[in-house]
Amino acid sequence: MAYVLGHHQYGKAEVRVVRVYRDTDPHELVDYNVSVALQGDFADAHIEGDQAKILTTDACKNTVNAFAKEHGDAARQPETFALVLARHFVRDVPQVSQARVQIEAYPWDRAHGTPHGFVRRGDHVRTTTVTVRGDDETVVSGLRGLTVLKTTDSEFHGFYEDRYTTLKPTNDRIMATEIQAQWLHSVTETGWEASFSAVKTAITHSFANAYSYALQHTLWEMGQAVLDAAPTVSEIRFSCPNKHHFVVDLSPFGLENPNEVFHADDRPYGLIEASVLRAEGPGRSDAFDPGQAW
Amino acid sequence: MAYVLGHHQYGKAEVRVVRVYRDTDPHELVDYNVSVALQGDFADAHIEGDQAKILTTDACKNTVNAFAKEHGDAARQPETFALVLARHFVRDVPQVSQARVQIEAYPWDRAHGTPHGFVRRGDHVRTTTVTVRGDDETVVSGLRGLTVLKTTDSEFHGFYEDRYTTLKPTNDRIMATEIQAQWLHSVTETGWEASFSAVKTAITHSFANAYSYALQHTLWEMGQAVLDAAPTVSEIRFSCPNKHHFVVDLSPFGLENPNEVFHADDRPYGLIEASVLRAEGPGRSDAFDPGQAW
Amino acid sequence: MAYVLGHHQYGKAEVRVVRVYRDTDPHELVDYNVSVALQGDFADAHIEGDQAKILTTDACKNTVNAFAKEHGDAARQPETFALVLARHFVRDVPQVSQARVQIEAYPWDRAHGTPHGFVRRGDHVRTTTVTVRGDDETVVSGLRGLTVLKTTDSEFHGFYEDRYTTLKPTNDRIMATEIQAQWLHSVTETGWEASFSAVKTAITHSFANAYSYALQHTLWEMGQAVLDAAPTVSEIRFSCPNKHHFVVDLSPFGLENPNEVFHADDRPYGLIEASVLRAEGPGRSDAFDPGQAW
Amino acid sequence: MAYVLGHHQYGKAEVRVVRVYRDTDPHELVDYNVSVALQGDFADAHIEGDQAKILTTDACKNTVNAFAKEHGDAARQPETFALVLARHFVRDVPQVSQARVQIEAYPWDRAHGTPHGFVRRGDHVRTTTVTVRGDDETVVSGLRGLTVLKTTDSEFHGFYEDRYTTLKPTNDRIMATEIQAQWLHSVTETGWEASFSAVKTAITHSFANAYSYALQHTLWEMGQAVLDAAPTVSEIRFSCPNKHHFVVDLSPFGLENPNEVFHADDRPYGLIEASVLRAEGPGRSDAFDPGQAW
Repeated sequence: MAYVLGHHQYGKAEVRVVRVYRDTDPHELVDYNVSVALQGDFADAHIEGDQAKILTTDACKNTVNAFAKEHGDAARQPETFALVLARHFVRDVPQVSQARVQIEAYPWDRAHGTPHGFVRRGDHVRTTTVTVRGDDETVVSGLRGLTVLKTTDSEFHGFYEDRYTTLKPTNDRIMATEIQAQWLHSVTETGWEASFSAVKTAITHSFANAYSYALQHTLWEMGQAVLDAAPTVSEIRFSCPNKHHFVVDLSPFGLENPNEVFHADDRPYGLIEASVLRAEGPGRSDAFDPGQAW
Repeated sequence: MAYVLGHHQYGKAEVRVVRVYRDTDPHELVDYNVSVALQGDFADAHIEGDQAKILTTDACKNTVNAFAKEHGDAARQPETFALVLARHFVRDVPQVSQARVQIEAYPWDRAHGTPHGFVRRGDHVRTTTVTVRGDDETVVSGLRGLTVLKTTDSEFHGFYEDRYTTLKPTNDRIMATEIQAQWLHSVTETGWEASFSAVKTAITHSFANAYSYALQHTLWEMGQAVLDAAPTVSEIRFSCPNKHHFVVDLSPFGLENPNEVFHADDRPYGLIEASVLRAEGPGRSDAFDPGQAW
Repeated sequence: MAYVLGHHQYGKAEVRVVRVYRDTDPHELVDYNVSVALQGDFADAHIEGDQAKILTTDACKNTVNAFAKEHGDAARQPETFALVLARHFVRDVPQVSQARVQIEAYPWDRAHGTPHGFVRRGDHVRTTTVTVRGDDETVVSGLRGLTVLKTTDSEFHGFYEDRYTTLKPTNDRIMATEIQAQWLHSVTETGWEASFSAVKTAITHSFANAYSYALQHTLWEMGQAVLDAAPTVSEIRFSCPNKHHFVVDLSPFGLENPNEVFHADDRPYGLIEASVLRAEGPGRSDAFDPGQAW
Repeated sequence: MAYVLGHHQYGKAEVRVVRVYRDTDPHELVDYNVSVALQGDFADAHIEGDQAKILTTDACKNTVNAFAKEHGDAARQPETFALVLARHFVRDVPQVSQARVQIEAYPWDRAHGTPHGFVRRGDHVRTTTVTVRGDDETVVSGLRGLTVLKTTDSEFHGFYEDRYTTLKPTNDRIMATEIQAQWLHSVTETGWEASFSAVKTAITHSFANAYSYALQHTLWEMGQAVLDAAPTVSEIRFSCPNKHHFVVDLSPFGLENPNEVFHADDRPYGLIEASVLRAEGPGRSDAFDPGQAW
């Protein structure tokens, strides 16, 4: 045949499952968006239209819901829930060679100390991507939507200038970004909630406190702070839009504007991406294939 | 002429202005999205193509930015900022008979006690709509995006049944909604931040604590709590989607599901709207035209 | 009691129903998003928590789905489908005094002349809002998302200048907008598809051909064209963002830019709203309450 | 040092440039969203906070705008515009080793044969990703947002069943998806518009005409059709959500529903991904690194 089937995978995306723990007092809950992607012996579904080896995406959804009950303890943390799901697909469905389970977890706060009332936080979404392939298991944790801003202690100057460079250097500017980060663990068991909390605190603390000479510089600072704070993390990758705040020219109105009034622009934005890794040691995962897990 | 020009207004929408107060230690900031809509003697712009009376929308934008500097104190609260802007357009631009200024305010928390670092909260957006027409001034405050959920203390039964009714009554369900509310003040001066905080607390506290026989019932409870808590509020209007959480049927897998595993559905959703007003007294604004300000 | 219940209504929003006509050859389909809002004797649901008169929003959804089968011919057009639904709720459910049914219709094109294959158009969404209250019935049709642009034949100058005006007048600019329009019919029966098509054509034809001295001017031109083209339309209301395209200053790079390279800005945008009505005659609906139907 | 900087790149994202060709009669226009990502000798910007080698993202934006004038002919097609931009960054900025330029192109139709009026199509977005690294140049074209549906000629049965499988097999269902596809060219020069048109037609024609035993099956059919139709394409990758349309159970209302009334569900959805490649020959690009260009 002149054509061949290349890389292929499939699954159910965005299963919105909420698990309430009513046997505790007060109640607890987790709020997840779960996506499953399977690889394996599925070429016939494409080429022959033969579904004999296809686990339906509907069954993937059912599995997520059933496991929220059967594996209620695992479901308390996105990492452990993703692990039991991914292991199940690889171990119990013969034709599956690899399962990737991604979870977005939406955090809720208890409302006013009431046992059963909750308010959804909107300051970040917690994420995880677990990939199981045979005995290889990688756990990546992450967050997105964490928007931070500093009103000073940020400079940007001394940059390369070409024919198309018109930007003026500055010794004091607003720096703001919406942090998206993913970090690879060197283990598959740890205290996931404490680890997440340590990483998130390291990121916001470092962003707020470290003097910045560029958003690139700040990513490096934040990455180091994360690796200092979270011993099971071997690598962290950031993707951060530079959310530009432009000083508005008020001189036509006879007004000074000493960095007080800014236009928060939508587009375009700088997009800065970087990863920070441990140089060596047990936290360094050389086997990690970022193409699958990131 | 066979045709006439009906209702018309115009202005600049979504001016994204960030005001930093650098003369304070620590810095403070407000983050606004300002929209201006003007009514007045503007028919010629439509019918004759004659712009002689049109204040450009670009000038509206400039005014927002300039006022963030010139009226820096007013800009600290969305209600006072909207008032100075709306009064300016009506008083200083002769052909403007009415100005409506709407502001969305995005709240930020200080990061880890640092003086200049901030993390954007995402749990709600604070809103205001100020309308000035001659000497009439109405101030409406509001919020949107406040998502709340209770895991119990919510029933729904005893409802009307017609040919198309298949819903089963329930004595225990998840109730969740994303609250959008707007409330009319009987005054144009008060402590706006304290007032907003009192209203928001009344809403979440009432939602979490009041036993519910329907989302309609809860809106009434929340409305009363707001009027109890905020003496300058004469009316509050809610628009609340009933974000359905369906109990997943796990019986095909031999599993019980005693209200533990839910599917959080996107669409359709119930949409419940109601206003609660003071029956009489100084807080009752009969002059209020909801068509303009809501 | 110190507080009273004000305006209230409820219903099911965003029922996503697709109706396929398989008894025709080739197949036909409509793709709707239906929202129902009911008013009536519903105060007890709020105040007493008594649901005895509440038609559940779930039943509203069921009714939409069942009517797509039972009233299959009516479902071919959003206006007729909304009418049968709204009439049903008012006539068959005693406690309902008013029903408002809103439909968004997503248009599809047949693919390559195949009988059963379709490609979704994305150039506009067709809308309708039908309100039935006793014997009063109003039908409003509309569209949104229709984005149009003209590269010339648009001026903007001679405008009012105040202290905050810095805009330069122009005799040649790009004008672009995303048209949202709603029009009120003086009848409740007509050829809805032909009428919609005539209005949409009048809008785009007028936008493209009429010389413009402001977006306000263009709304007036488009409104007249619609009333000329659609005899059952008594009023049309536009809400149109002025999607600014700014000429990029290329002089720092030694380049001319004679209106060739533009930055398409997101925010802020001008927002121009206007309605055009028949001055008199059978097409003029004085009974129309825009607060409900618009 | 204990930590090292891993993969990093940066640039300006989402430069919204509109280029009008006014020297032609009638006018022509292209409407682009351009994103630039640069790799190279940029570690010092992170680690030392030294920006001496950083071409500012502002200059990236300026370059896009200036090139829209300087390379007006290249700007007529997204592929050629991305190529001149990416080549410039690699060849003219010494510290840049690799440039990736991504463009989203929004198509417009001429309105009613007018020379200067346009209506934006919304049925798809055309995309391209060009990567230049030294002498290696890869051109990937694509589209997204192309939503297609067939009302019959789609089956799904004979699938694998495990403990969590409850789906019923079907011999006739609606199949719908929103196609996102990217295809790699074996050349860097061709008639890009004709090539895009041939691929898009092959996709929709194949979707509409090929009998389907699964969405997987249809991806394979569409992939082959594309390779048949576009000789310069060596590989095409699809990512297609299975937009489920569920037959509504109308039996509680005493109604049959022979595949006529469907609920169009939002989430979850199946997500099917596959690539189809030439087995051998000049169209086969073995050097292609999908990690960069896809």
